[in-house]
Amino acid sequence: MDAAHIFRGNQRVGHVDPADRGLAYGDGLFETMQVHHGEIPWLDAHLQRLQRGAQRLAIALPDEALLRAEIAAMCANRDAAVLKLVVTRGVGGRGYAPPLHSDPTWILSLHDAPPPMQPLDIVWCETVLADQPALAGIKHCNRLEQVLARREVVAAGADEGLMRDTSGNVISATSANLFIHDGDGWCTPKVDRSGVAGICRDWLLRHVPVRETVLDRDAVQRSSAIFLCNAVRGILPVRRLDAREWPASVHIHALQRQLADAHPGFM
Amino acid sequence: MDAAHIFRGNQRVGHVDPADRGLAYGDGLFETMQVHHGEIPWLDAHLQRLQRGAQRLAIALPDEALLRAEIAAMCANRDAAVLKLVVTRGVGGRGYAPPLHSDPTWILSLHDAPPPMQPLDIVWCETVLADQPALAGIKHCNRLEQVLARREVVAAGADEGLMRDTSGNVISATSANLFIHDGDGWCTPKVDRSGVAGICRDWLLRHVPVRETVLDRDAVQRSSAIFLCNAVRGILPVRRLDAREWPASVHIHALQRQLADAHPGFM
Repeated sequence: MDAAHIFRGNQRVGHVDPADRGLAYGDGLFETMQVHHGEIPWLDAHLQRLQRGAQRLAIALPDEALLRAEIAAMCANRDAAVLKLVVTRGVGGRGYAPPLHSDPTWILSLHDAPPPMQPLDIVWCETVLADQPALAGIKHCNRLEQVLARREVVAAGADEGLMRDTSGNVISATSANLFIHDGDGWCTPKVDRSGVAGICRDWLLRHVPVRETVLDRDAVQRSSAIFLCNAVRGILPVRRLDAREWPASVHIHALQRQLADAHPGFM
Repeated sequence: MDAAHIFRGNQRVGHVDPADRGLAYGDGLFETMQVHHGEIPWLDAHLQRLQRGAQRLAIALPDEALLRAEIAAMCANRDAAVLKLVVTRGVGGRGYAPPLHSDPTWILSLHDAPPPMQPLDIVWCETVLADQPALAGIKHCNRLEQVLARREVVAAGADEGLMRDTSGNVISATSANLFIHDGDGWCTPKVDRSGVAGICRDWLLRHVPVRETVLDRDAVQRSSAIFLCNAVRGILPVRRLDAREWPASVHIHALQRQLADAHPGFM
């Protein structure tokens, strides 16, 4: 990881204040973006999701022109990398009550691009996603559920893990959305009560016929093809989930080609 | 607020690392403690709850002797104050997977004691507490629900607000536990699926006959006496909740006296 660039409002600062509300309460939002030949394929979509999250939580955002200029400067000359942006509500008091006005803290950090992945071996996580419409869909910084689930994935020696809600409906992987082919077409779980509305998921919803639906564990195990997706790695076919194995899918391959045509970073 | 003391493992450091997992994911725990004549009334109970949280989340804790020595040094000569401790999993990577080993980050900060309060005017919050047994009871740093609820309290001009779970059961206030007298005796909501097992609540459960139960909104509105409590302010009688008003209660007064006898900081 390169040195992070830290800002408070419009000012570059040297350090995160220890009284930052991001640190105290996870009172913030983040975006994790692919950098390809100095650019971010879905930058507008990332910034739009950030704005939806900021509206929901009533967090002030950094000046967009300044944010875009900083991102462009950091990514220039980077062939392949990952850029992470964290925006918190900023500094403010000891209690839960947000200050009426506070300059947001924002942190940009560049990371190595992840290595290419083979089709995934995934597992079912026992950690559930709580039902919370007020926080569903947005990419906020309250992520202990994902941290606990990811520990299960690591313990199982798997590549990823699927999470269900408290009713047993399948929502997503720990850091990727889920798509299955049920024989008739593509389906992906709704994310209106838990989960994150992923940027790659949104792209697929706009460019491919997909039903947003409720999926139980059996529907996933029965599916004729299954993949995970996120904005860093694109479309990741699943090879194995527990005892079930899937052969390479022409349907998934076609989607991967369509995505790579639109955004060469996902070649 | 005095300058915070920041540590990484056993080393005092100048700043919080911008890649701290507390900042990224709320991957941490905290305690908010009353300081009275240089001491913390329930220090052992706070450290025990911290330990339960650390076990649940598999977070390494700071060396206890060092932590206690730092707390003692910071609180010495402070007549009345609030001490906040945040412990995060530390620094570790871009993804949700926790590092196998990481030195915890811990931050101690001293704040002014809150002014004494009159009996409280409280409201019902619309923001619900999600059902999540994996995180219930412990004092972790994923607190966006409380932040959103507290915004409602501020908007209503109230002192505090009661939060319900997704089934409509009343769980707690945004930063205090709830006790009601139902005519037969004291009741407090269970905190095994959401909410925090408060330190003052625990003290009351050990020293007073109290039933841990499931309470709906009607039971609260019907109660013959009602108070909130936390480790900083002790027992706080409620005067008004929506249209209902409660007169001063001899039952609550007796509990306040019992608490003040045990811990003069709550006089």
